[in-house]
Amino acid sequence: MLNALGKEAEKLGFNSGKWETEINVRDFIQNNYTPYEGDASFLEEPTQATIDLWNECCALLKEEHDKGGVLDMDTKIVSGITSHGAGYIDKNLEKIVGLQTDKPLKRALQPFGGIRMAQSACKSYGYQVDDEISEIFTKYRKTHNQGVFDVYTPEMKAARHSAIITGLPDAYGRGRIIGDYRRVALYGINRLIEDKLEQFKSLEGEMTPERIQLREEITDQINALKDMIKLGQIYGYDISKPAQNAQEAIQWLYFGYLAAVKEQNGAAMSIGRTSTFLDIYIERDLKKGILTEKQAQELIDHFIMKLRLVKFARTPEYNELFSGDPTWVTESIGGMGVDGKTLVTKNSFRYLHTLENLGSAPEPNLTVLWSKNLPHNFKEYCAKISIKTSSVQYENDDLMRVIHGDDYAIACCVSSMVAGKEMQFFGARANLAKCLLYAINGGVDERLKEQIGPKYCPVTSEYLDFDEVMQKYDDMMEWLAGLYVNTLNVIHYMHDKYCYEKAQMALLDRDVKRYFATGIAGLSVVADSLSAIKYAKVKTIRDENGIVVDYEIEGEFPKYGNNDDRVDSLAVNLVKTFMSKIRKHYTYRNSIPTMSILTITSNVVYGKKTGNTPDGRKEGIPLAPGANPMHGRDSNGAVASLASVAKLPFNDAQDGISNTFSIVPDALGKDEVFMGDVVFNFDCGCQDGRFIY
Amino acid sequence: MLNALGKEAEKLGFNSGKWETEINVRDFIQNNYTPYEGDASFLEEPTQATIDLWNECCALLKEEHDKGGVLDMDTKIVSGITSHGAGYIDKNLEKIVGLQTDKPLKRALQPFGGIRMAQSACKSYGYQVDDEISEIFTKYRKTHNQGVFDVYTPEMKAARHSAIITGLPDAYGRGRIIGDYRRVALYGINRLIEDKLEQFKSLEGEMTPERIQLREEITDQINALKDMIKLGQIYGYDISKPAQNAQEAIQWLYFGYLAAVKEQNGAAMSIGRTSTFLDIYIERDLKKGILTEKQAQELIDHFIMKLRLVKFARTPEYNELFSGDPTWVTESIGGMGVDGKTLVTKNSFRYLHTLENLGSAPEPNLTVLWSKNLPHNFKEYCAKISIKTSSVQYENDDLMRVIHGDDYAIACCVSSMVAGKEMQFFGARANLAKCLLYAINGGVDERLKEQIGPKYCPVTSEYLDFDEVMQKYDDMMEWLAGLYVNTLNVIHYMHDKYCYEKAQMALLDRDVKRYFATGIAGLSVVADSLSAIKYAKVKTIRDENGIVVDYEIEGEFPKYGNNDDRVDSLAVNLVKTFMSKIRKHYTYRNSIPTMSILTITSNVVYGKKTGNTPDGRKEGIPLAPGANPMHGRDSNGAVASLASVAKLPFNDAQDGISNTFSIVPDALGKDEVFMGDVVFNFDCGCQDGRFIY
Repeated sequence: MLNALGKEAEKLGFNSGKWETEINVRDFIQNNYTPYEGDASFLEEPTQATIDLWNECCALLKEEHDKGGVLDMDTKIVSGITSHGAGYIDKNLEKIVGLQTDKPLKRALQPFGGIRMAQSACKSYGYQVDDEISEIFTKYRKTHNQGVFDVYTPEMKAARHSAIITGLPDAYGRGRIIGDYRRVALYGINRLIEDKLEQFKSLEGEMTPERIQLREEITDQINALKDMIKLGQIYGYDISKPAQNAQEAIQWLYFGYLAAVKEQNGAAMSIGRTSTFLDIYIERDLKKGILTEKQAQELIDHFIMKLRLVKFARTPEYNELFSGDPTWVTESIGGMGVDGKTLVTKNSFRYLHTLENLGSAPEPNLTVLWSKNLPHNFKEYCAKISIKTSSVQYENDDLMRVIHGDDYAIACCVSSMVAGKEMQFFGARANLAKCLLYAINGGVDERLKEQIGPKYCPVTSEYLDFDEVMQKYDDMMEWLAGLYVNTLNVIHYMHDKYCYEKAQMALLDRDVKRYFATGIAGLSVVADSLSAIKYAKVKTIRDENGIVVDYEIEGEFPKYGNNDDRVDSLAVNLVKTFMSKIRKHYTYRNSIPTMSILTITSNVVYGKKTGNTPDGRKEGIPLAPGANPMHGRDSNGAVASLASVAKLPFNDAQDGISNTFSIVPDALGKDEVFMGDVVFNFDCGCQDGRFIY
Repeated sequence: MLNALGKEAEKLGFNSGKWETEINVRDFIQNNYTPYEGDASFLEEPTQATIDLWNECCALLKEEHDKGGVLDMDTKIVSGITSHGAGYIDKNLEKIVGLQTDKPLKRALQPFGGIRMAQSACKSYGYQVDDEISEIFTKYRKTHNQGVFDVYTPEMKAARHSAIITGLPDAYGRGRIIGDYRRVALYGINRLIEDKLEQFKSLEGEMTPERIQLREEITDQINALKDMIKLGQIYGYDISKPAQNAQEAIQWLYFGYLAAVKEQNGAAMSIGRTSTFLDIYIERDLKKGILTEKQAQELIDHFIMKLRLVKFARTPEYNELFSGDPTWVTESIGGMGVDGKTLVTKNSFRYLHTLENLGSAPEPNLTVLWSKNLPHNFKEYCAKISIKTSSVQYENDDLMRVIHGDDYAIACCVSSMVAGKEMQFFGARANLAKCLLYAINGGVDERLKEQIGPKYCPVTSEYLDFDEVMQKYDDMMEWLAGLYVNTLNVIHYMHDKYCYEKAQMALLDRDVKRYFATGIAGLSVVADSLSAIKYAKVKTIRDENGIVVDYEIEGEFPKYGNNDDRVDSLAVNLVKTFMSKIRKHYTYRNSIPTMSILTITSNVVYGKKTGNTPDGRKEGIPLAPGANPMHGRDSNGAVASLASVAKLPFNDAQDGISNTFSIVPDALGKDEVFMGDVVFNFDCGCQDGRFIY
């Protein structure tokens, strides 16, 4: 079989490599890709088919918007890889085919995560889940959500209710897994099944629960792969064999991704790092004269169009938390190889060019892996597209390449993981600002007036004493870290048990490195609060029950975001301390604990649920997003603000530090020239397609 | 609540004890039961209602028999605790109510163990499982059987196919769990739920997979308890509260058991040790003058009648393996207390008396816990009933009491476990006779001519050398023990995952002691084979491929079953060796490995699948049952035969050693006097109701 594949590769005109004898997409890329240092002048305008097709999509999207956000919903057919027949936008125009259901923008029914969520999502748009399906997923088939709530402790429920831990993926899919969809194109499904059978065979011997679990998962993965072949057949393609040309490569890859989104409604269903991989097929077809640049761009345009149509049935609560209905179809573009060669290809341009051909859009979340060594022409084109469309996200390749090598991709907004080898157990956030208030009030929630945390001694003095507060805060963080990790342990155990991502995991290696991603919210509020307590005088204001509900600050204090070590060190210390407390605990499947400082949208919701804080912030005011200084407090200018953020230790926040940084284009100069190579040790985020750097 | 219960107990006229403040049925019994040393003269004939009701049952049973073994089957309603409305034999006559479905002898549909088995069971009697149910248990709800086969290695499947490991509970329910159904009567369900909630609360802290699993199970148990209340309501009873009188006590207890058999189709659904417990309620009601002996016997007769009607939908393969359709509703009667007082009560007599009032029957499997100190009158009555009905099983209480104390019960035929505190992961058998043939043939199956075991060097000499064979046999047993334990690990992981016994486990403590019960078949064949190789000359006969397919014995050799240490020591050594190899491996949930020598019926099937053996036994001839000598080889008389068996180390075969020992009643004397107090260190078995000692 391997030899046969080798010959196949030769026949296809690819350079040989390890990729022929093992599943190794990176090796294929390295042996076959053509770096591109030229400019954007080769790019083509959309074809008439693209224009017509996109117009049809736009009409549907408008109709969806006019109907209140949802065009149509499936209420009878449980979504699965092969659940629906073929669906088209316009069969005659589409070069890349495949929809989640039988019609564009008809949202699929995905009850494995939770039947109540599926019902609620339907109900909020005027639909009702079929009674029989409701019965099945109540009586016979437990869901992830039910499993979690069967196990939660009252303390976990209370912490969730008070929102000291919040946004937990217990009522939605955890996402943050990227199937290596390129494998479908390069190897064809048959070869991938063969590989999984070998993995299955390699796991014989002592049958511990861990091994039994993995063996069962691999069987599920193999079943998913077999279903992917059927999915191809539904649309008239045989994806059991490797893709033969550019059109097939894109189509095969998309079928892999389509299987994933038909099976899972994950919070982030990112697509990986596909552009340079696909460029290999396009380059070859161009050279062979069987494809023109116009046709190549058309294929990419149609592919991206499909990604723009990916939608899930979600509840209003979900949309509130995420400030919209994001799918996080993140595609990682460009970057540099570990050998110093750029990974930018013509196809990196083509992907960005879709923002011109189809107009700007938040999805797919086109993300440039930024390096100071990226080709100048590509940087220029990025700058141009950013300025023109505000739809490009940038991430620091020079930082991440050190850790992950040169074949990683971004899941969601900043979570980096090696393609096909790593995944993440997503863990949302612990609200450290609220935790500080618990430290002051002895575990009593300042809004609910209920005992949520442990009954530690509250602060009883009128004025806050820094050392006392720090000691109490340390104890309360100790409690919070343990509760948080254990809550996530329950969630991920149940997600694996009742809502396993078999289609995505089928496209990963056997021994996946799992990150256990925790996150914190309220960093700058805490830093400033502690600074106020230390450098000014903070007086407590108590309600009739003696609970501290407000604070009066007497005097000045240094504020985070001004490159002032007195307060920045408090922020740095906070990150280090909380991460070290997280690391003390058992993490499910011996995953590697990481942390993010990354509330790009949910900081608004968290702020609503956090009372007055000792930094002078009032109840309900949003926390600053991610690692941002509180709005308006970074008074020493942009560079000082960024310098404060840059001090945060990436080693203790490896899942990403976000800094939402708005800048008026004029500030960068009047020409379409990129701002240069200022690179910080943090990653950037994108919110609803607006460009934030 | 506890105080309230204490007052309740006082009101009910029970003596106080620890049982009021903790779930402790034994303490209740010890504080309240009335030992009975008298004779059987108090017993009453059946009432007219009993006679009429049993006649109706007999008519139904005959109809069932005439229809080929099954009267009716449910093909639409998935059996669960509350799945059916009330069902009656004859509502006006029944003192104890409750059926598995809506009609007597209508077999329930129980697909959680395996949809294919459910379909096959239906099909073999001319029924068909509803398409929708088939779809649900194929597409949405994985079953235990599917889970197991998703994980099995090819080696496991091969070993199962060749029957070197056989009878595995991967296609049927493992059984061997006894809910402490007495708790329902004594405490009422509300108090049991309260206890489970306390257990749930006690399992907070670090969320390891083990703890998450147990928490989820306790939630499932609580749901089962809530369903039991509903089951009571369906029949017009409120079992949320403790039983108030004898009728309620029996009824409550039976509802607990009914919940179990509605939920599970276990290979053995034993009922526990209920007679002396119930006697307390009956004695009190008799004393209070609210019950007559006639009425008491009627209640017991009706209760036993219900147990006789317990049936499951099973496949022909299952029935072949178990030589019938046993339910193993084992009730453990009598025994002695650890304080030396007998646990025999009037109700011990009443249970046995049902064999007179209703006639003999294999189920429930009435099992006397025999002690040399049992009251003489009770022994006499046992002897009388045994001789009259051949329907009583005896087990050695003096042996088991040392290990388990005085509140254990027998699951299935010999597996002893403390009521409410212990359970067993049932593991069927490894065929050690076949293993010996594999040692000789280097892992090649003598019947299938396929490589099933590892490719160790086969014996190449014409005559078998004892030392060489022993060495090779030791290696092959090493392999078999590992494979066997790991196969069982898979089975029990999946049984817990897809077919958890929530109703039964709801009536057990939090920290259940789990036995990991392995078993061996072919003991005497191996002992005699090794003896022949050692003391006679055994010539190998090979087929055209060089596989040894037969043996010629030259000379005489001592045979197991004649109290001859030369061969008995080989048997003893075999038991010790295999058990020590079993103990080397990880066992699921850190259960305690045990072993049984216990093929009471399946020895026939195992023999069919085992080729010619070096002891002169021919292919297809049944292996001897359990620890029995091969038929006809125990030529030194009964005592010598029993003495050989008695040498086997109970410590290495703690799950029970069976010796099927037939004796003509005349040999015991002409009167109805029991044979005396000959007690061996092994337990006895019962086959289809025939008395075997």
